Amino acid sequence: MLVSFEGIDGCGKSTQANLLVRYLEKKGQKVILRREPGGTKIGEKIREILMREEVTPKAELLLFLASRNLLVEDIKHYLARGYFVVLDRYVDSSVAYQGFGRNIGKEAVEKLNTFATDGLMPDVTFYIDVDVGTALKRKGELNRFEKKEFLERVRKGYLLLAEEHPERIVVLDGNRTAEEIHKMVVKEIERRWKFDN
Amino acid sequence: MLVSFEGIDGCGKSTQANLLVRYLEKKGQKVILRREPGGTKIGEKIREILMREEVTPKAELLLFLASRNLLVEDIKHYLARGYFVVLDRYVDSSVAYQGFGRNIGKEAVEKLNTFATDGLMPDVTFYIDVDVGTALKRKGELNRFEKKEFLERVRKGYLLLAEEHPERIVVLDGNRTAEEIHKMVVKEIERRWKFDN
Repeated sequence: MLVSFEGIDGCGKSTQANLLVRYLEKKGQKVILRREPGGTKIGEKIREILMREEVTPKAELLLFLASRNLLVEDIKHYLARGYFVVLDRYVDSSVAYQGFGRNIGKEAVEKLNTFATDGLMPDVTFYIDVDVGTALKRKGELNRFEKKEFLERVRKGYLLLAEEHPERIVVLDGNRTAEEIHKMVVKEIERRWKFDN
Repeated sequence: MLVSFEGIDGCGKSTQANLLVRYLEKKGQKVILRREPGGTKIGEKIREILMREEVTPKAELLLFLASRNLLVEDIKHYLARGYFVVLDRYVDSSVAYQGFGRNIGKEAVEKLNTFATDGLMPDVTFYIDVDVGTALKRKGELNRFEKKEFLERVRKGYLLLAEEHPERIVVLDGNRTAEEIHKMVVKEIERRWKFDN
């Protein structure tokens, strides 16, 4: 099963991804966690470029996609061996950040996603929604991904995707406590996946 | 004027690109030379990944395209200021190497090229054609881009592109001496561009 967590920085998705991994391990499942950009040896090199350098919107997207293509190889390897794969960001991030945030457009990014992933989509995506002001306050600082107007477009993108894919994308209220959100994640996972033990 | 040089490694294109730059400078033209992958600060970082690491065909293509998108910004800057821009590899390399060589397909790569370059095409492209055996002998060593069957597909790709775009792509016989080839390049440039002096 392929599970992704999505949302703007500061929404709490990395916390939730880690809580889910621990829960699955306790359930006796084999599980790996990967983050984007990065997640592979070369992907982490690409991550370094993305985090340190100022690049054009299209180059930014293409670098994310290159990293994603390498990650997909890794994901397929583990899925074929019965692992749960938990992703801290995946395809929806590109649509929200580069498609909406950087105005490249939803359809162009979706086509490129399909190319880069060979169409591998998550079985379920948890989008943790918080308003931009809350997210910025939690982070305490701004990097270049975190300008307010930009993030407003990103959030709109996420909400539109969630509306378009209600079966895949579960919207969670990021104003709740980590424990409350985790319970909702578990409930949803258990609804979709029957554990032996 | 935007001029690109294309061909498999060992065909002599870097030599020709440099000879053309020297010729244009002697003619009193402003001229810059850029190579792919690379050509910009971040592009050179991407180049390092591409030269050192084994990546998937699609990730390879996406990294080239990211580097190209950054280069295009640079090219536009100089073209707008009246420079001749000479490129050691550009869009046709992706079609030949990843489209044909790595079997991603011509049309997919062409679409991605258009996305990455905003449609900026060379005014003239010099494709220097040599057979694969000659090229490999000249290089004296093999890197991962230089497997024989792979290079045969790349060469076929180049020849097909040249057939498809006879007005843009000038095919030169790479078995001739560097001086002979340079003379043909100059003749073609002078046919397309009237110099004041």
